[in-house]
Amino acid sequence: MAEKKAVLLNFWGVAVSSRPHAVFHKMEELHNLPGGFLSSVVSQKDSAMSRADRGEMTLSQMIPVFEAECVKEAQVRAVTLPSDWSVGHLLEELRGAMKEVQPAVLKAAASLRHSGLLTAVLANHWLDDSASGDTAARLLALLGGHFDLVLQSCRSGHRVPEPAMFSSALQHLGVTSQQALWLDADEEGVKAAEGAGMKAILVENLHDALHRLGSFTGVQAVGTQSPPPACSPDEVSHGYVTIRPGVTTHYVEMGSGPPVLLCHGFPESWYSWRYQIPAVAAAGFRVLALDMKGYGESTAPPDIQEYSQEQLCKDLITFMDKMSIPQVTLVGHDWGGMLVWVMAQYYPERVRAVASLNTPLFPVDPSVTPAEKLKSVPIFDYQLYFQKAGVAEAELEKDLERTFKIFFFSSDEAATRPPISTAGVCARGGLFVGLPEQIPRSSMLTEAELQYYVSQYKERGFRRPLNWYRKGEANWKWMCSRPTGKLLIPALMVTAGKDQVLLPAFSKGMEDLILNLSRGHIEDCGHWTQMERPAETNSILISWLQQTHEKTGGVTMTPKL
Amino acid sequence: MAEKKAVLLNFWGVAVSSRPHAVFHKMEELHNLPGGFLSSVVSQKDSAMSRADRGEMTLSQMIPVFEAECVKEAQVRAVTLPSDWSVGHLLEELRGAMKEVQPAVLKAAASLRHSGLLTAVLANHWLDDSASGDTAARLLALLGGHFDLVLQSCRSGHRVPEPAMFSSALQHLGVTSQQALWLDADEEGVKAAEGAGMKAILVENLHDALHRLGSFTGVQAVGTQSPPPACSPDEVSHGYVTIRPGVTTHYVEMGSGPPVLLCHGFPESWYSWRYQIPAVAAAGFRVLALDMKGYGESTAPPDIQEYSQEQLCKDLITFMDKMSIPQVTLVGHDWGGMLVWVMAQYYPERVRAVASLNTPLFPVDPSVTPAEKLKSVPIFDYQLYFQKAGVAEAELEKDLERTFKIFFFSSDEAATRPPISTAGVCARGGLFVGLPEQIPRSSMLTEAELQYYVSQYKERGFRRPLNWYRKGEANWKWMCSRPTGKLLIPALMVTAGKDQVLLPAFSKGMEDLILNLSRGHIEDCGHWTQMERPAETNSILISWLQQTHEKTGGVTMTPKL
Repeated sequence: MAEKKAVLLNFWGVAVSSRPHAVFHKMEELHNLPGGFLSSVVSQKDSAMSRADRGEMTLSQMIPVFEAECVKEAQVRAVTLPSDWSVGHLLEELRGAMKEVQPAVLKAAASLRHSGLLTAVLANHWLDDSASGDTAARLLALLGGHFDLVLQSCRSGHRVPEPAMFSSALQHLGVTSQQALWLDADEEGVKAAEGAGMKAILVENLHDALHRLGSFTGVQAVGTQSPPPACSPDEVSHGYVTIRPGVTTHYVEMGSGPPVLLCHGFPESWYSWRYQIPAVAAAGFRVLALDMKGYGESTAPPDIQEYSQEQLCKDLITFMDKMSIPQVTLVGHDWGGMLVWVMAQYYPERVRAVASLNTPLFPVDPSVTPAEKLKSVPIFDYQLYFQKAGVAEAELEKDLERTFKIFFFSSDEAATRPPISTAGVCARGGLFVGLPEQIPRSSMLTEAELQYYVSQYKERGFRRPLNWYRKGEANWKWMCSRPTGKLLIPALMVTAGKDQVLLPAFSKGMEDLILNLSRGHIEDCGHWTQMERPAETNSILISWLQQTHEKTGGVTMTPKL
Repeated sequence: MAEKKAVLLNFWGVAVSSRPHAVFHKMEELHNLPGGFLSSVVSQKDSAMSRADRGEMTLSQMIPVFEAECVKEAQVRAVTLPSDWSVGHLLEELRGAMKEVQPAVLKAAASLRHSGLLTAVLANHWLDDSASGDTAARLLALLGGHFDLVLQSCRSGHRVPEPAMFSSALQHLGVTSQQALWLDADEEGVKAAEGAGMKAILVENLHDALHRLGSFTGVQAVGTQSPPPACSPDEVSHGYVTIRPGVTTHYVEMGSGPPVLLCHGFPESWYSWRYQIPAVAAAGFRVLALDMKGYGESTAPPDIQEYSQEQLCKDLITFMDKMSIPQVTLVGHDWGGMLVWVMAQYYPERVRAVASLNTPLFPVDPSVTPAEKLKSVPIFDYQLYFQKAGVAEAELEKDLERTFKIFFFSSDEAATRPPISTAGVCARGGLFVGLPEQIPRSSMLTEAELQYYVSQYKERGFRRPLNWYRKGEANWKWMCSRPTGKLLIPALMVTAGKDQVLLPAFSKGMEDLILNLSRGHIEDCGHWTQMERPAETNSILISWLQQTHEKTGGVTMTPKL
């Protein structure tokens, strides 16, 4: 077994590029104080700031004591403090510096964790009781989402680089000092860590330092494309709403802010958004990732009529009503994409904005029946095969693991795998006909992730998910009967260059149907966009969400990973 | 059995005082159009507005057609439309009028539903696809929270007062026309309803009309104090977060907006906030009503050490971390009140604001042990009795129904019930010693509500809830060891005049500990504030929440019930 390893880093100088002494220096220059004035106040034994760092006093208790210490130091040095001198200004500078978390560090942390290493950030922070907004809280949330441990000095009672701070962190992580690496921009910290038995890297240039991590950890933390953090089923909140007797909606929830509903496609799970949920939450939104009707823990009767778009919309509105959420931003993929477009058209007052991955908004044509439409597009033949209740169920349920191994593959794996064609399915008598028994698992997902999908279909199988395909005629009639103008709410269409069914070309002309359409495109991406290109998906989605919700882009606390 | 009865009312003229024709008249005067100009445009067969009302076109489709109709009408009448004429202005007026829902109507609806009547509001509304904010959505949410049915003409395909609109509503409600009463400010609507077999009241003066409801329904809908709407366990969303193996937090969630965590006391449940949850949600907040650790579905080990304030705080922070909620506003009652004060002091950066019902912020006195403190206050004697594991459990678990009948009573019932004293409990050998076997159920709660409490204690009993009382020494030592300045975040203290244990006098001096303290006081209220005085509790809480979160008070869509 690989030896357990951990990477610990100093918040000041590494997670953020600033160091308090640099801020002191800046303030000294600004206020014409002698160089080293503030550093010497702060570094005195039991200075207010070091006591606040150790959690012996709160920020608001520290301020007057710190002020007094400055006055005393000025007397000793026979210096006159400027009339506009205030510790408050200094604290604001420090607070501002705390927000500038370096995206490269978060990215490196993600890579390390993805490879099984433990990560920690150690921070000399005071207890902020100043009621000055949520900066400190958001910082903690951001760091907490990327590191296994965020240890603040005001909670541990010890400051970086005191030996007790290191040993406290190592104990929390369950590693020995020999298993741990320390990153610090201060030589003093590097020496202290080495003294405590750790290896240490002096960070002079962040990029170089992160490169050097590789030789210790065996993990290349920069330059490689590792996926952003994913959430795990055991670690998230699971919510349940009874829509009506026999129909329950299950959702996973994360974050605080404007609500964003994620609607997955066929044959998937809320879990298909595992890379998006933490990222969208960290960007300041409240994510609700649904198990769509009939999937996973969202239970519903097996009857086909339960799965018309009209009924699915009504159920989603009931979900919002029971949650008392007036408006949401909807994000869908595949069948979930279809549903969010329909919601935006028929319940526009409940939709703040709408985004779809892969699935375009198809105009409704009253002159062509859905059956004719399907027949006219050869790659849609599998949908005709899905029509007869029981047939596709039997094929897809026969070996759940094989089914998901066949479905899930990335665009660059397509060439090396047995080809699966969605055309000619009826003629060859099955979607999987002619495929070998043994199919490799895609590198897009781990064995545990694959097994999670399998587990979600063990109890109720594919009947309900397949029913989504079986109300085409009713859906078409219903849509033809409803008035729709041009869509006026903000919309985003993300196309995937290598999707073999939902071709980017299908999205042509959407500008005629939508007034305010943004677009994203991921060229080297197949159908399973959220897991094949999680970083790009997050980046496109979050930047659109922030624009749409008029959030300023200047929040470096929510870097695009 | 009482005959099923329903009260239906017209949105225009009853739920809101405005009627479209009054708005038309106003616009005619403003733009120097002949009287009746707009009414005649709109009332033409298949006019754009009537088609939009019937859902045959959306709002954005209606606008150009309506404009053209005005131009045509002007030609017919040989009138010149003013240069600044625009249908947009008229629609803004109508949209503004839609927001002014009359609090008396919502209050009456609450009274009627509380007495078992069905309620509905019928509205001639267009499908708002104009991406003009969330006004329409919030209106629907508000009405949906107060009426059994909100039927919009654009969804039903029929307008008020068309017979099909009435029959559609009656069918949804499952009542006959003879069982239904119609309220309308238009004579035409009254006549149509009577023609459809309903009784009808012409609303000339709202107050008088609501009074007259009584003779039809047998329910006095005005002048009486009926409680605000309560949520039911089956109708709300239930969420579950695993804090760590063996510790799960269960919560009920409703609403969208800044998160507000509700923390109940001993021996209660999330359900103790049933009157607050819908009201706070309707006021624009996201409510999370927790089962506190060890209660109901929030499971945890039975060990006493799990229930120290230090551990309870850590678990609450873990809950917030896993939900990715940086900051919350905390509201507590009884032991929940204690916890929210402690959270505000020791985790101030995670608390946006803090409110407590009944429980004051007690200053920590390092010179007096908790045991000495308890001994010095005779009414706290029950807490000494609660110390020994197993003793109080046996007494409280013996007959759960009787236990809750003894605990829950209102201040005005106190005089007529066997007295329960929290003093001298140790000496008399039990809290309930000397009380009769048969105890009446308080009128504060229904039999079903009482049974819900009983159900929440059936499986795991009182051991865990009682453990909250058993870490006094550890709590005191921990608090003495932590620095606390004056509390700077906004705070609210609500005292209850007739609470026999948490006396209002205990809250004296809190201004010395808290910079920004608001106060509320409910004189005729005992310990169970949320259910004894739900309307007053909601009013105090919501007005403070809105002030604290800088929400404008001018939102008539969220009247204080």
